[in-house]
Amino acid sequence: MMLKIKDQIISLLSKGDKDFWDILKAIDVPIKNVCKVLQDLLDDGTLTLEANKFHLTKTLSLKEKHEQKDAIKKFHEISKLRPEIKPEFFQTPILESDVFKRVEFMRSRQDLENQKIAILGDDDLLSLAISLATAETEVLVLEIDKSLVEFINKAANEHGLNVKALEYNAAKPIPAHLKEKFDTFITDPVETLLGLKVCLSRGASLLKSNGVMYFGLTMLETPLNIWQEVERALLDMNFVITDIMRNFSFYEPTEYDIKALRQNLSLPFLEKIEKPRKPWYRSSFIRAEAIGKPKPLIEVEIEFTKEFYFDDYQVTFYSDESST
Amino acid sequence: MMLKIKDQIISLLSKGDKDFWDILKAIDVPIKNVCKVLQDLLDDGTLTLEANKFHLTKTLSLKEKHEQKDAIKKFHEISKLRPEIKPEFFQTPILESDVFKRVEFMRSRQDLENQKIAILGDDDLLSLAISLATAETEVLVLEIDKSLVEFINKAANEHGLNVKALEYNAAKPIPAHLKEKFDTFITDPVETLLGLKVCLSRGASLLKSNGVMYFGLTMLETPLNIWQEVERALLDMNFVITDIMRNFSFYEPTEYDIKALRQNLSLPFLEKIEKPRKPWYRSSFIRAEAIGKPKPLIEVEIEFTKEFYFDDYQVTFYSDESST
Repeated sequence: MMLKIKDQIISLLSKGDKDFWDILKAIDVPIKNVCKVLQDLLDDGTLTLEANKFHLTKTLSLKEKHEQKDAIKKFHEISKLRPEIKPEFFQTPILESDVFKRVEFMRSRQDLENQKIAILGDDDLLSLAISLATAETEVLVLEIDKSLVEFINKAANEHGLNVKALEYNAAKPIPAHLKEKFDTFITDPVETLLGLKVCLSRGASLLKSNGVMYFGLTMLETPLNIWQEVERALLDMNFVITDIMRNFSFYEPTEYDIKALRQNLSLPFLEKIEKPRKPWYRSSFIRAEAIGKPKPLIEVEIEFTKEFYFDDYQVTFYSDESST
Repeated sequence: MMLKIKDQIISLLSKGDKDFWDILKAIDVPIKNVCKVLQDLLDDGTLTLEANKFHLTKTLSLKEKHEQKDAIKKFHEISKLRPEIKPEFFQTPILESDVFKRVEFMRSRQDLENQKIAILGDDDLLSLAISLATAETEVLVLEIDKSLVEFINKAANEHGLNVKALEYNAAKPIPAHLKEKFDTFITDPVETLLGLKVCLSRGASLLKSNGVMYFGLTMLETPLNIWQEVERALLDMNFVITDIMRNFSFYEPTEYDIKALRQNLSLPFLEKIEKPRKPWYRSSFIRAEAIGKPKPLIEVEIEFTKEFYFDDYQVTFYSDESST
């Protein structure tokens, strides 16, 4: 905790002198802790305080920061070649602009740079966006879709990105060598109660002490009583929820949207509805931070039954019945 | 639930025809429920669906909407005359602009118009802002500071606002005639664990079934383990947390800021720090919604001891020791 505060203060002051209130304004932790660290850094000569400004006495060789604009452009080029969306794997990619909105938010929370990051399910290609937009990250993708695993590994290889993808089904336990190895975990979970508990437990298994978890959750297919159970599960796994940003991420509209609604809800008016032309499906983006060691609720293999990915509120899941 | 969705759809369509996806985009509840209500409204003739657009068959006499701009101007005029800030009552008003940011957010969540609203502690004068900015609200303020109670009642009276203030200390139980009477509750609680539990319990006592609670919580004086306890308390009181907006509200900087830090933290460097010239103190704004009937954790009178308002992390509380 104190170490992270120290890093934040030094990183902040490496960009120029700041007054006391600017420092407090920039760091979201108890004032008491910031003040203690400031006094320590003054006492050991790392900082000086003159005319109300804190000054860093050593210059730091900061890693060259990647340009966000270049990252978006390159991401756009790469993702043109992505494999087709597979509704059978619940793939619903986030808008490109909103992928980078997530990147920027996580960066602002100190959860990307110099962190080991795990992503469960990456049809958004968030792994590539993170790697393109940061100087020093290591990203592992756990993904059920083999063609996506291959695509991500190939793209990472071609563009020299520190990203690796593995084929993995969330029904399986996290392999022992990956447990408690990551600082940051990100997923867009299946939204059944079982799916949510399993996906978030897999994240808890992957995370180190004080690790941070991000996930999307909708009000569109998850009723509030399930939200409540998700929140209880997070607390029981030793997390505290620090952010819930409503409608933070919008998803690409697809031809499956209306097909799925017709399939799952037998309401006459849906026959007259055309497919969407603008993004409408969205999720809240939630950040939770472990207090000490995360305690996953589920560590064993679970049966990959329909209950895992389907319940009465899941109405955008489309299965091509003609092909089964 | 279904009734609220119906109201939202009708209110939305009263502003003009909308296509299906625009309706889904505007309402944050399960798709399944929206679709069912749409089918019902089509079946009973309230709506028609032509060329992919939903149309309201009856015209509604909508209440004239107050102009936000006028409300801000009037609020500014009124608040010029407010009583002086009293640090002994933990008064730290939010910036005027951020008071209206709260109003707009709550309005967008359908938690103001036509609602009965209770506010615990109103040094922000949020009650007056809400009443000025809405067409049809009823606001009760519970406030410990007698001069503020008088000011709010006088201002409400002079400007014809449906706002009433009562003198009340959160250490006391909620009077029986006010229990379970409100739709929306708002507070900026004392940030000790006891203070938080008491303030939020008072809110739970005031709220009807499915009522909504809003409160500010800082990372500056509330460490994450206390955040976690607050979240557990909310779940135990039958609430689900729907929004946590980081650094949503900034507070007026005051001369007490540095005095308080010097008083509470004996660190040498603080003697050299000048008072803040820009806002720096801020809180996250949290929204929680009851699932059914709220269950307050604390209903009895509690002892109004120092433990209620002071702990090791409370560093901005200033007591004028020369006067005691």
